Amino acid sequence: MVAEAKNYTPLTTESLAERLVNVEAVATRLGKDSASWRVREVGDGNLNLVFIVESAISAVVVKQALPYVRLVGDSWPLPLSRSFFEYHALTRQSTRAPGTVPDIYHFDEEQALIVMEFLSPHHILRHSLQKGIRHSGLGVMLGEFCANTLFKGSDFSMDAAARKEDVALFAGNTALCDISESLVFTDPFFDAPMNRHTAPQLDEQVRQLRADTAAKIAAQTMKQVFCSNAETMLHGDLHTGSVMVHEDDAKVIDPEFVLYGPMGFDVGMLIANFVMAWCAQPGYSSESDDRGVYRQWILEVIDDIWSSFAVRFGELWRTERSGILFPATLFEAQGHDEALERALANQLDRVWVDAMGFCGCEIIRRTLGLAHIIEFDDIPDADVRARCESTGLNIGRKVLVEREDVLSMQAFLNVIKITSTSMETNA
Amino acid sequence: MVAEAKNYTPLTTESLAERLVNVEAVATRLGKDSASWRVREVGDGNLNLVFIVESAISAVVVKQALPYVRLVGDSWPLPLSRSFFEYHALTRQSTRAPGTVPDIYHFDEEQALIVMEFLSPHHILRHSLQKGIRHSGLGVMLGEFCANTLFKGSDFSMDAAARKEDVALFAGNTALCDISESLVFTDPFFDAPMNRHTAPQLDEQVRQLRADTAAKIAAQTMKQVFCSNAETMLHGDLHTGSVMVHEDDAKVIDPEFVLYGPMGFDVGMLIANFVMAWCAQPGYSSESDDRGVYRQWILEVIDDIWSSFAVRFGELWRTERSGILFPATLFEAQGHDEALERALANQLDRVWVDAMGFCGCEIIRRTLGLAHIIEFDDIPDADVRARCESTGLNIGRKVLVEREDVLSMQAFLNVIKITSTSMETNA
Repeated sequence: MVAEAKNYTPLTTESLAERLVNVEAVATRLGKDSASWRVREVGDGNLNLVFIVESAISAVVVKQALPYVRLVGDSWPLPLSRSFFEYHALTRQSTRAPGTVPDIYHFDEEQALIVMEFLSPHHILRHSLQKGIRHSGLGVMLGEFCANTLFKGSDFSMDAAARKEDVALFAGNTALCDISESLVFTDPFFDAPMNRHTAPQLDEQVRQLRADTAAKIAAQTMKQVFCSNAETMLHGDLHTGSVMVHEDDAKVIDPEFVLYGPMGFDVGMLIANFVMAWCAQPGYSSESDDRGVYRQWILEVIDDIWSSFAVRFGELWRTERSGILFPATLFEAQGHDEALERALANQLDRVWVDAMGFCGCEIIRRTLGLAHIIEFDDIPDADVRARCESTGLNIGRKVLVEREDVLSMQAFLNVIKITSTSMETNA
Repeated sequence: MVAEAKNYTPLTTESLAERLVNVEAVATRLGKDSASWRVREVGDGNLNLVFIVESAISAVVVKQALPYVRLVGDSWPLPLSRSFFEYHALTRQSTRAPGTVPDIYHFDEEQALIVMEFLSPHHILRHSLQKGIRHSGLGVMLGEFCANTLFKGSDFSMDAAARKEDVALFAGNTALCDISESLVFTDPFFDAPMNRHTAPQLDEQVRQLRADTAAKIAAQTMKQVFCSNAETMLHGDLHTGSVMVHEDDAKVIDPEFVLYGPMGFDVGMLIANFVMAWCAQPGYSSESDDRGVYRQWILEVIDDIWSSFAVRFGELWRTERSGILFPATLFEAQGHDEALERALANQLDRVWVDAMGFCGCEIIRRTLGLAHIIEFDDIPDADVRARCESTGLNIGRKVLVEREDVLSMQAFLNVIKITSTSMETNA
């Protein structure tokens, strides 16, 4: 199903034009005068080559997988097949949530290469969160993206045999699943070689967390849900570095960690990254702006993500429930519409509890594990940085372990505010 | 992966010897004098051809899939590939729980044909349950079978990539999953064409159940767990017609409904079939034997299934936890063995709650759906039969809807006894 490439060769800024000029989907957009194309390599992620290719007429993005983790080097091999899975995730997301992902122009499986829309002048959402830039409608867009993709990839919506085919297809993305399984749920909870944290300020908190058996059991329980509950096609890496924004436009990119998994994972990871951005704001306060208003906006985005998710999920539940679960024959056809509303509330509660658990894991791993976030990392004063991170860790630990008791978005927002206030009082 | 056969031809008692004499695995056992082989077709199941082939030296069983549901005829096509999935399930069960399934001598994918050990003088467990025959050690064997196969097919034990390969492999068994999805969880709860029940005696109870939105939501929630939670390789059809017994020997057969699913499904379905056998006993009471002692034995088997499952699962948890979940690096290596015991208790609680839900669905569908059990069906007096079935339905409905509140085997056994007593008082 996924052929590892015999003739695979990584692109370079020098070779790209010659190699892609005969690809019709590229030449149609950029013109055939490849000598005039300008090629820049802009991959700032951890894994891949990313080129922006511009001509006088237009521009495209070329993303090519490397056979290893770029961040680490060829000592950490990673299969090229992730490009295949990313391509198939993108085509599905584009159908399920039109307009939310880049247009795909060309896919070359052997070269592990995707040519796609150049989003311009967009930038990574994380940079906005660091600089204090607002984007109207952001939470609604992201909440609806989650609802559309998660509902429509599940047995609430899909033909059962087609869903099982996709479960089988994406089960091949083992190498990237393995990264999530280790880095999100296990490594941060013991002295794993690639971990790092702000030391010595967080040393004591790290020691406590690694001795915290309730947190470790909770994290492994969330890992079990992640590994087992193959209910829908996830983005799999839906953090604020996987969202590109410009003013009030936003697109979701980079679904190479795609897997069949639990709905709460995408939702929880997304929310966690906004919580961390909220925690990081004191690191960017100035005399003219204490970032208090911006912090409030971040909480509104978090609130919007969930409320838009719930509203859109409810619409889909009522109007596009064409899968094998909760079939109309059993409910609408029997005049039992009211029961469906109860069942919908159960579903949303279940996704919420999972989201809280995954949110906690994500905050902890982005603070103590291998992959950190720039909003924390770029805070120059280590004491300030540690205080911001520590607030995040306390929120993360609480919602992970007490996920069944954080019963609503309001309760969650209270956890955030109370944990932070208590930290600031103790500081 | 699964080739549908171009040269497939069903065997007959006449053609079998000629067609199999050149299969070495068969000739080795039966000898080459195929003219002397005695061939009987004994398939009393719903789906397949089953032959017993005997020679002067030995005997084998030949099971061949038909391209349709035998019970219904060629109006209900069913892919031959189920034989491929059964074969792969058998090889895994045989490794994970040695000695509990028939030895496999030969598999022919194109002919959808498995040649296996002839279990003699074994008979189907259901017949014992009807006749009042006890088998010592039965509950222990079945509980340990469940623990061994369910633990060892999961991320508690397997290499993660190997488990994902098996998830992908068995995801192809869609047609048989579809049967379970429809017949177990949905059809019994509305007026589906193939349903049947003892009428008119159960008419009112059927009407109530179909109006019972709590039961319908619970059944669809269990269906969702069945479809989504791909945690381990299930037998998929583990009822008392899939167990062959002779005195104190028992073997599990017929895993063609194999799928990756939730541990509680096999456990719950198995328990449900003993509960129904218990409910059916008044249908077989006589002046000399009111079946009271036999009923008590059935309850002991149910108790043994769960306690043996829990004990064996705990042993495996402590000594063979080699998968990615709850890794030793996080627990044993940190001196956190005590936390592992808490985590084990959580796991068993979760399997138990699911088992209760699936048990309820199984009882209801075997009484009101397409596939019934001989222990009920063979009770000649329709009033007596309906009372037995009605007790089962009440137990099934209660443990399905209140599965979170039936906290232990003792509580479950009390539900069985109290429901029955209350029925008999009202009768």
